[in-house]
Amino acid sequence: MASSRPVRSKKSQAAGSALETFANPHPGRDYTVRMRCPEFTCLCPKTGQPDFATIHIDFVPDRLCVELKSLKLYLWSFRDQGAFHEAVTGSILDDLVGAMAPRFLRVTAEFLVRGGIYTSVVAEHRMPGWTPAAPVLLP
Amino acid sequence: MASSRPVRSKKSQAAGSALETFANPHPGRDYTVRMRCPEFTCLCPKTGQPDFATIHIDFVPDRLCVELKSLKLYLWSFRDQGAFHEAVTGSILDDLVGAMAPRFLRVTAEFLVRGGIYTSVVAEHRMPGWTPAAPVLLP
Amino acid sequence: MASSRPVRSKKSQAAGSALETFANPHPGRDYTVRMRCPEFTCLCPKTGQPDFATIHIDFVPDRLCVELKSLKLYLWSFRDQGAFHEAVTGSILDDLVGAMAPRFLRVTAEFLVRGGIYTSVVAEHRMPGWTPAAPVLLP
Amino acid sequence: MASSRPVRSKKSQAAGSALETFANPHPGRDYTVRMRCPEFTCLCPKTGQPDFATIHIDFVPDRLCVELKSLKLYLWSFRDQGAFHEAVTGSILDDLVGAMAPRFLRVTAEFLVRGGIYTSVVAEHRMPGWTPAAPVLLP
Amino acid sequence: MASSRPVRSKKSQAAGSALETFANPHPGRDYTVRMRCPEFTCLCPKTGQPDFATIHIDFVPDRLCVELKSLKLYLWSFRDQGAFHEAVTGSILDDLVGAMAPRFLRVTAEFLVRGGIYTSVVAEHRMPGWTPAAPVLLP
Amino acid sequence: MASSRPVRSKKSQAAGSALETFANPHPGRDYTVRMRCPEFTCLCPKTGQPDFATIHIDFVPDRLCVELKSLKLYLWSFRDQGAFHEAVTGSILDDLVGAMAPRFLRVTAEFLVRGGIYTSVVAEHRMPGWTPAAPVLLP
Amino acid sequence: MASSRPVRSKKSQAAGSALETFANPHPGRDYTVRMRCPEFTCLCPKTGQPDFATIHIDFVPDRLCVELKSLKLYLWSFRDQGAFHEAVTGSILDDLVGAMAPRFLRVTAEFLVRGGIYTSVVAEHRMPGWTPAAPVLLP
Amino acid sequence: MASSRPVRSKKSQAAGSALETFANPHPGRDYTVRMRCPEFTCLCPKTGQPDFATIHIDFVPDRLCVELKSLKLYLWSFRDQGAFHEAVTGSILDDLVGAMAPRFLRVTAEFLVRGGIYTSVVAEHRMPGWTPAAPVLLP
Amino acid sequence: MASSRPVRSKKSQAAGSALETFANPHPGRDYTVRMRCPEFTCLCPKTGQPDFATIHIDFVPDRLCVELKSLKLYLWSFRDQGAFHEAVTGSILDDLVGAMAPRFLRVTAEFLVRGGIYTSVVAEHRMPGWTPAAPVLLP
Amino acid sequence: MASSRPVRSKKSQAAGSALETFANPHPGRDYTVRMRCPEFTCLCPKTGQPDFATIHIDFVPDRLCVELKSLKLYLWSFRDQGAFHEAVTGSILDDLVGAMAPRFLRVTAEFLVRGGIYTSVVAEHRMPGWTPAAPVLLP
Ligand SMILES: [Ca+2]
Ligand SMILES: [Ca+2]
Ligand SMILES: [Ca+2]
Ligand SMILES: [Ca+2]
Ligand SMILES: [Ca+2]
Ligand SMILES: [Ca+2]
Ligand SMILES: [Ca+2]
Ligand SMILES: [Ca+2]
Ligand SMILES: [Ca+2]
Ligand SMILES: [Ca+2]
Ligand SMILES: [Ca+2]
Ligand SMILES: [Ca+2]
Ligand SMILES: [Ca+2]
Ligand SMILES: [Ca+2]
Ligand SMILES: [Ca+2]
Ligand SMILES: [Ca+2]
Repeated sequence: MASSRPVRSKKSQAAGSALETFANPHPGRDYTVRMRCPEFTCLCPKTGQPDFATIHIDFVPDRLCVELKSLKLYLWSFRDQGAFHEAVTGSILDDLVGAMAPRFLRVTAEFLVRGGIYTSVVAEHRMPGWTPAAPVLLP
Repeated sequence: MASSRPVRSKKSQAAGSALETFANPHPGRDYTVRMRCPEFTCLCPKTGQPDFATIHIDFVPDRLCVELKSLKLYLWSFRDQGAFHEAVTGSILDDLVGAMAPRFLRVTAEFLVRGGIYTSVVAEHRMPGWTPAAPVLLP
Repeated sequence: MASSRPVRSKKSQAAGSALETFANPHPGRDYTVRMRCPEFTCLCPKTGQPDFATIHIDFVPDRLCVELKSLKLYLWSFRDQGAFHEAVTGSILDDLVGAMAPRFLRVTAEFLVRGGIYTSVVAEHRMPGWTPAAPVLLP
Repeated sequence: MASSRPVRSKKSQAAGSALETFANPHPGRDYTVRMRCPEFTCLCPKTGQPDFATIHIDFVPDRLCVELKSLKLYLWSFRDQGAFHEAVTGSILDDLVGAMAPRFLRVTAEFLVRGGIYTSVVAEHRMPGWTPAAPVLLP
Repeated sequence: MASSRPVRSKKSQAAGSALETFANPHPGRDYTVRMRCPEFTCLCPKTGQPDFATIHIDFVPDRLCVELKSLKLYLWSFRDQGAFHEAVTGSILDDLVGAMAPRFLRVTAEFLVRGGIYTSVVAEHRMPGWTPAAPVLLP
Repeated sequence: MASSRPVRSKKSQAAGSALETFANPHPGRDYTVRMRCPEFTCLCPKTGQPDFATIHIDFVPDRLCVELKSLKLYLWSFRDQGAFHEAVTGSILDDLVGAMAPRFLRVTAEFLVRGGIYTSVVAEHRMPGWTPAAPVLLP
Repeated sequence: MASSRPVRSKKSQAAGSALETFANPHPGRDYTVRMRCPEFTCLCPKTGQPDFATIHIDFVPDRLCVELKSLKLYLWSFRDQGAFHEAVTGSILDDLVGAMAPRFLRVTAEFLVRGGIYTSVVAEHRMPGWTPAAPVLLP
Repeated sequence: MASSRPVRSKKSQAAGSALETFANPHPGRDYTVRMRCPEFTCLCPKTGQPDFATIHIDFVPDRLCVELKSLKLYLWSFRDQGAFHEAVTGSILDDLVGAMAPRFLRVTAEFLVRGGIYTSVVAEHRMPGWTPAAPVLLP
Repeated sequence: MASSRPVRSKKSQAAGSALETFANPHPGRDYTVRMRCPEFTCLCPKTGQPDFATIHIDFVPDRLCVELKSLKLYLWSFRDQGAFHEAVTGSILDDLVGAMAPRFLRVTAEFLVRGGIYTSVVAEHRMPGWTPAAPVLLP
Repeated sequence: MASSRPVRSKKSQAAGSALETFANPHPGRDYTVRMRCPEFTCLCPKTGQPDFATIHIDFVPDRLCVELKSLKLYLWSFRDQGAFHEAVTGSILDDLVGAMAPRFLRVTAEFLVRGGIYTSVVAEHRMPGWTPAAPVLLP
């Protein structure tokens, strides 16, 4: 069921890890997929020291869903890359949008403490013309 | 009080577990029923390995409510079925909507970790023409 | 300060436990009263087995408030009654509305697990013509 | 920096504890002050038995802020007073509004359990003509 | 990548700790950066006694982001300064806005208990003309 | 596999709920069975008011184990009985020892708050001549 | 069932609140009663300011158990008394031992923060000649 | 490094899942390996209904360690087997001891609620002649 | 009640903060006092950067108890001192032992994270010839 | 104060990261140092996939303490090494013992889930002839 559209981001091309996709089994409705990966590590581009983060990915698929194993390998491909907090979050967003072209996608990167300060970064993509259904807030 | 409308989904027909319903005792008002089942298991269609999830079902009944014991048996019927995360969530949604024809229904499937990544999927049904009351947000 | 309007619901009449009220000491403003009772038990009407729940009652009083001790006795009156989840929640709502005629009232019944499934039910009453103040969401 | 406007509520006059204020150091912008006092006790007016509560005070100051030590003394002044749940919450609201004339103020009183039931009461004041800024909900 | 705009607040000039910035790597989109520093201490201006707080900084960068190490040093510069709760929160807001000129910035200061009362203060800045995107509330 | 030794305690004889047992499948070794029942209710013998508790049962079986469904019915049989905290704990201990004759058994009853005070009672039985193996405390 | 031995401590004599007891229903075995009262308040003997604590009482009764309602009234009798942390804990221990003459009794007083420091005090009584059974540490 | 001693338990022989082992890399010292598997399911032998448990395995290896993937497959082999709580715990203990011949091994099975009662079972094996080092309890 | 023995440690002499004591009100029995101070800060002697810790002090007093306010001032006296983790813990132990000459005293210092590593240090003093009572481990 | 005994383990020699030490500032007494590092990653020697763990190190120093920064670098040196769970724990133990020659040292490695199973490993070293003081268990 994997699609023929392996998307290889600029960064991950070096590391050889492309995001693979498969056809959304329910394209007729908007629905949410949430993923949480507590095993993300990259390197600080200034000091070369390791950084650790938990990556959250929330999305509304359009025609494609990301394949879980390729996502795992994609996230591993940052292990030896220097990446600033704000930049790495934006890169993951760009690569996932490039691979899936989703209706909506949000990346949240929660980094472990550095210098006594905990940082997280949140970035979103919205497909032009798409609007979410009005949320139903049940009591 | 069980209704005469046992709804047997395509998948559950094989397993012999139909969702039974009973008449909504308060059809005159919108109200919310929330159910949480931490005992859901199915099989990965690719590898045959077991997957485990907690299933949440939140709904506003119309003329029918789902009978609790038949729901339990219905969820058990996935035990030996291969089912992708996104697809199984959609199937449960479709079957419950087929059985109850509710004003609103949301299925949330929270899967245990696979490959270091935690995934959950959320899908909703809204009866055409139904809108929720404006929520009262008390201080 | 107890009002002269003891309201005796159909069900609680048998058990002899009427909801008593007292005059709202601040009728000039909308405000919220929240009550939580973790000591509710009734019987399953199908099997006769005991069910246990926590009952939440949130309301905006109009001219009357419910008296705490009579509420406790009222909730005890379900101890020997058969009561389905959806029906008991609606009955408590009806009885409290009958006793207090509040501007707003919400009943949430969180039941302990049965058949591996946790169920809760939420029902609301709004006085015709009443609208809540726009909520102030402070940062 | 304490203002010359000590406000002595009717109740607290007996106990000799006036709420003191000081000039808001940032009157040019709306901002939120939140206070939480887990050390509140008063007496049940019916039985004379002690009640215990946590008091939350959330406000947007206008020209005045409440001085912390006088607030502590003010809350202590309820120690020997009989006070119903709904009434004491309203009194604290009235006294703080009288002392500070804030743009917005909310009092939440969370009482410890009585008769197996946990009660809390929430009351708000809004300065006429003041509206909160539209909240910024960051992802 | 550090910008040429070191901003030295009035207060921090004494302490010699300027906030440094670097160019926002994704200026084309609104995104959120959240920082939490549990290691903040200053002195009570009235009694000279130490106060302790956790500082939260949430912002949407425009052309500049704050450099993490300079932020740490900036927050340390309050260690020997007298600072009222409401005033210190406003000062941190002003200094960060002066350094970054962000689209949006919120400072939350959660102080440890004094006199049995826990206090926190929240203040916000919004760039004139900027409005946040309508939030996407996924189910 | 149920044993032929249904043990009917004095109290439970009235309620018709005997504890049933089955043969210990591993009588050759000491091992621990722990059970927790959060759905226990009885009546205060002084006031007739309902009490609620969580019952914990920890035991080392000898030749018999208690059958789960009969235990549930046995605990339900206290629903309409007056029972002091200290006495009900001792009765449950006596009845379980009478039914199972275990090597060791401990009953812990954690009652919900009464008069602002939370009470629990713990009682144990040890078979004469039995001593537990020295515990292995792994690092 | 209340014993004829109301014990009136020196301190509680002034306040008129004697500890009452009843006959231990299971004097033939050692067992544990644990009580927790989160509603204790007294006054600082130096400053007159209120202190708040949670009192834990754990005991092995001998011939007598403390009656719950009299214990509540006894703890209330400290409301207007000045009492140092170390001294009040010892007084409660002495009074309970005087009333019950238990085999073992432990009082733990957990006070709320003062001056940024949380204090608790633990004191024990052991009946001469009594030794606890060797504890059974189940795996 | 996998040993040549695949041990196939009686039960798992049917399911074709043998426990594999590898040589203990540090046989010269006693040390602890702890494993927790929250994904265990079997069937109730009486009713055929699914049971769910978390299995804990704590051991001190001797010459062999259990291989992680074979352990996972071994635990899956219970999926379609009827197994009483006490019996399944003992079987897992026996099979792991048969495969590893460890110095010490403890199996803890925590089952999800049935009939309102939570059950867990703990069983241990000790190699004859082995005694654990006296535990070092650091302050 | 403050003793005439203000003990001024070598370090705190510079800062002018002596530990004061008062007579133990219950010298006839061993009992435990536990204190927790989450507001400790000192400086790293290598880098001059602030460190933050929570200090726990557990002791069995002999003839003297430490006075709470002087303890607070004593802990503040480290604010401007350089102090290694292991050394500062030992110094606090030495100073408290010098001031109180307790039967037993334990200092636990839990430091906030540095370099991604959380450190705590625990040191104890025992009066020669003193042994603790055998602990009573109630079930 | 760093000692002249940089100890370079076999493994870390390749990576160039030696453990440095400094003189124990309180060699005259046994005391405990606890360290927790949630930022450990290595590679699975079988699959090359990254593993993540939290490393705990608890020790009683003798003449030397480990220097914090060198420890951080030492733990980073595993980032590109293949290391089985049981083996890596033993290696860290051996290297720390080689560097510090402590009276006691315990390494606990808590790995993130693999194949649905959470594993941790605990190993200890005791200096020959050293025995810990009898622990003081305060009530
Ligand atoms: Ca997927
Ligand atoms: Ca690498
Ligand atoms: Ca139902
Ligand atoms: Ca199967
Ligand atoms: Ca009321
Ligand atoms: Ca203030
Ligand atoms: Ca008083
Ligand atoms: Ca940054
Ligand atoms: Ca300073
Ligand atoms: Ca059983
Ligand atoms: Ca009944
Ligand atoms: Ca009692
Ligand atoms: Ca292994
Ligand atoms: Ca099956
Ligand atoms: Ca003291
Ligand atoms: Ca160190």
